[in-house]
Amino acid sequence: MNIGILTIGNELTSGRVEDTNSSFIARTANTEGWQVSVMMSVGDNDDDICKALDHVLMFCDAAVVTGGLGPTVDDITTVAIAKAYGLRLYMNEAVLAEIKALYARYRVEWTPNSAKQAMFPEGSETIYNPVGTAWGFVLNMNGTIITVVPGVPREVRRIVPEGVIPLLRKEAGKEKIFTTSRTLKLLGMPEAKVDQALSDVDFQGLGVSVGFYPRFPQIHVQLTVRDADEVRATANLNQAMKLSQERLSKHIFGYDNDTLEQLVSEIMTSRGLTLAVAESCTGGLIADLLTNVSGSSKFFERGVVAYSNASKTDLLGVPAEVIEQFGAVSEETAVAMAAGVRQTAQTDFGIATTGIAGPTGGTDKKPVGTVYIAVTDGRETICRHFSFRWDRRQIKEISSHWALDILRRRLIEGKADE
Amino acid sequence: MNIGILTIGNELTSGRVEDTNSSFIARTANTEGWQVSVMMSVGDNDDDICKALDHVLMFCDAAVVTGGLGPTVDDITTVAIAKAYGLRLYMNEAVLAEIKALYARYRVEWTPNSAKQAMFPEGSETIYNPVGTAWGFVLNMNGTIITVVPGVPREVRRIVPEGVIPLLRKEAGKEKIFTTSRTLKLLGMPEAKVDQALSDVDFQGLGVSVGFYPRFPQIHVQLTVRDADEVRATANLNQAMKLSQERLSKHIFGYDNDTLEQLVSEIMTSRGLTLAVAESCTGGLIADLLTNVSGSSKFFERGVVAYSNASKTDLLGVPAEVIEQFGAVSEETAVAMAAGVRQTAQTDFGIATTGIAGPTGGTDKKPVGTVYIAVTDGRETICRHFSFRWDRRQIKEISSHWALDILRRRLIEGKADE
Repeated sequence: MNIGILTIGNELTSGRVEDTNSSFIARTANTEGWQVSVMMSVGDNDDDICKALDHVLMFCDAAVVTGGLGPTVDDITTVAIAKAYGLRLYMNEAVLAEIKALYARYRVEWTPNSAKQAMFPEGSETIYNPVGTAWGFVLNMNGTIITVVPGVPREVRRIVPEGVIPLLRKEAGKEKIFTTSRTLKLLGMPEAKVDQALSDVDFQGLGVSVGFYPRFPQIHVQLTVRDADEVRATANLNQAMKLSQERLSKHIFGYDNDTLEQLVSEIMTSRGLTLAVAESCTGGLIADLLTNVSGSSKFFERGVVAYSNASKTDLLGVPAEVIEQFGAVSEETAVAMAAGVRQTAQTDFGIATTGIAGPTGGTDKKPVGTVYIAVTDGRETICRHFSFRWDRRQIKEISSHWALDILRRRLIEGKADE
Repeated sequence: MNIGILTIGNELTSGRVEDTNSSFIARTANTEGWQVSVMMSVGDNDDDICKALDHVLMFCDAAVVTGGLGPTVDDITTVAIAKAYGLRLYMNEAVLAEIKALYARYRVEWTPNSAKQAMFPEGSETIYNPVGTAWGFVLNMNGTIITVVPGVPREVRRIVPEGVIPLLRKEAGKEKIFTTSRTLKLLGMPEAKVDQALSDVDFQGLGVSVGFYPRFPQIHVQLTVRDADEVRATANLNQAMKLSQERLSKHIFGYDNDTLEQLVSEIMTSRGLTLAVAESCTGGLIADLLTNVSGSSKFFERGVVAYSNASKTDLLGVPAEVIEQFGAVSEETAVAMAAGVRQTAQTDFGIATTGIAGPTGGTDKKPVGTVYIAVTDGRETICRHFSFRWDRRQIKEISSHWALDILRRRLIEGKADE
């Protein structure tokens, strides 16, 4: 089946927002074994929407349209589509009641324009939105299926797999190609090197396609196989995984939906271990990542963002002489911070970061990007020194990820470094 | 001038790579005062490229096309365009010599297919590539300007501003439409309510277009005016701003590139004030936001992520009886945390958060989303109670933004509320 994607919104054509919906929908469609022959974006404008729909209808078997279904005046997708095909709009009372109930439940004030979200073109069927108030709809225009859903990326990630794909599957009917994929997640390896490391693997021979997705500071490598024969597809994917793992093993921290904070959380919780974190250059980001995990209060005892020297001494017991002699950004201070936070919190593990995130504060001896990360369990202490490039935010991000990964390796291997 | 953007590559239609070129080009075009009426992406496929070009040529004054100009077999853009318009290809000997020199300089082996990059459609002019071997070209098809450049994002970021925009400027020549915009940034007002509050303003009469951009937990309202007369444009935009401000004032925290953390940072630094933060439910996110601001060490003394009750008592001096009597999630605990962190850090201000981010931990009396935020300067203490919906991450985000905004209002108005 041949899919056209149309995303609608002035935020797209102004370049203010990057369109992440199109690639998500394309990926999802490809996973089903369908091809995407065109992706289009237009602004919240009647005329441009109609022209784009004409193009998609002319050349595709089905269309996925996102955006412009909200309650505000610039949300005109439904009206534009109805106009394009000469369809009247009707108020769907059942949907209206559902939306009103949702507003009441979340204590959002009902405004007259909110009712707009229950208006649909005649002949369409609604598509339920499990995570928002704007429902979608599907139209069959002389055999071409047009699905229209809201454009909020968080909602697209639910409503497309749950509401749109099943509708399109019915349409695609017989084709039935088995598709499956696995993702390897890496930290600390540049994309070009990943590419080089995998260059001798005959993915094509295995019928496996490879995608590199840099997600700073990580790189995700996705292996996908599409084959009419499920057994052969699975065998080939497993073989491709094995060959990739052999070549990248040192840098793989997880697979598929794994995150570093989730992995650390699982290990600590399952072993009944506790953790305290002392952050200087990462400024609270490690604590923020860990506390994104539901249930993190089971192992995460406290975090200290010791930005001033006084706070390093007061809260973590780092001797003022250590800071004076070696500097706040030094191995000695990092180690003392990790030991200090562990001791005061009486946890099993302590981790600490200190560094220069920039853009100011660098010196010849300690340039911007100098970071020390320490992990201790009270008996054994690891401290690693990094020299990052990148900007302030990126230095915070990569330092936080490394801190979590050093801890993770320490937990699973008994030691942090190779 | 009306621009169409066409990006070409199987990596786009497979969803493997997100298209960052389109939004970059759109942004650049908008800065010039031009409108983007359509953005399209197609795979490396003759037929799809031709159809997309037809669409762009029909509805746009100029097109920017990227991708498919490299030396490999799947780079077919030049051939596809020549075919579409019945143009012969010719070898540009000057470009060929330049490319050969570049290969030699970078010691890249010359292969026969590399010469492909010096083939151009007859009637086109070349566009120099300052950062790669694939040059672009420009064609004038009955008054529509088609510029074609390579698709490597790094190259697009050089060749579009340096090579493409000057060509389009020449074309735009006379029209000279003045475009300018302002953004109002709001916290604590649902999109539908913003829309309603502005519903009596005659933006259309002022020639001002309005865009709502929800950036959870904020909403950004962008007012844009396009007018041949700069004086009239500016006056109309100012009038639209004034009317919007009157209607939204309570909820506006900033404008254009303002962020809450940047505003707090500027006020604190300019007044020589210092801050300490005690976080429970926000888990370090407030500290993370504040330390994203370069120079935040001037006012941000420390942060404490007091996740356990023990840490609230140890690090912040919250009496165990307060926690026992009122609960860790209570006004009393929030106030004690803010006072405690301010006192131990000896800062001018202390802020604190405590709440239930979920998804577990809620009770009938204190459901998930219950959050207390306290701000104190030692004499006056404000504590606000919130009942948020949303998921764990969103509760962290909205609580952190409110904490910063309560502090900001306290700083500029002498009181936090209204």
